[in-house]
Amino acid sequence: MLMLITYDVSVTTSDGRRRLRNIAKVCLDYGTRVQNSVFECEVTPAQFVELKNELLCIYDSDEDSLRFYYLGKKGREKVEHFGAKAVIDPHNSTLIL
Amino acid sequence: MLMLITYDVSVTTSDGRRRLRNIAKVCLDYGTRVQNSVFECEVTPAQFVELKNELLCIYDSDEDSLRFYYLGKKGREKVEHFGAKAVIDPHNSTLIL
Repeated sequence: MLMLITYDVSVTTSDGRRRLRNIAKVCLDYGTRVQNSVFECEVTPAQFVELKNELLCIYDSDEDSLRFYYLGKKGREKVEHFGAKAVIDPHNSTLIL
Repeated sequence: MLMLITYDVSVTTSDGRRRLRNIAKVCLDYGTRVQNSVFECEVTPAQFVELKNELLCIYDSDEDSLRFYYLGKKGREKVEHFGAKAVIDPHNSTLIL
C-alpha cells in the first residue's frame, strides 16, 4: 500500500535540525522523497507500523507535526505532479510526471 | 472530495517568495493549511479544476514542484496527525488529531 508522509519540523534549534535529518533518513529507508518534507512509501501494513513507530520516537510532539495519508493499493493513480523535481519511481523505473 | 496539495517553491529569489505567498493564498481560498506546504481542500471536481488551473498559472515549472493527491469522499478517514499544529476542521468544528 502507498503511504504519504508529510512533516513540519521546527529547525530553529540544533535539536530540531537533527530531528529533521533523522526523520528524513527513516523515511528514505522505506520510500522516496518527492518534495522536501513529503515522502511516498510503498509498504506493507506491518512495515508501516514499524515506520510510524520509528518516526514517533524521533519527533518532538510539542514542536513538530507529522501526518500520514493512506493512499492504498492504487495510490500511484491518485497523484498528479507538476513542475520541478519529478522523481524516479523505483517500481516502474519511469518518471512520475 | 478531499484533495491534498503539497508544494515546494524555490524561495531564493523575491519572485519565488511572491509565488509562495500567492500559492498559499489560492489554497486557503479552497481549504485548510495543515502544514507549511501542505493543504487539504474539500472541493467538487469543478472546483478542483479551477483550483489547479489557478495554481498552474502561478507556479514556475522550472523551479517549483506541485503535487495533487486525490483522497476521495472519505478522505478524512485516511489521515493520521501527530504532534503540533493540529488544525480546526471547519466541516466538523473539531480538532483533527
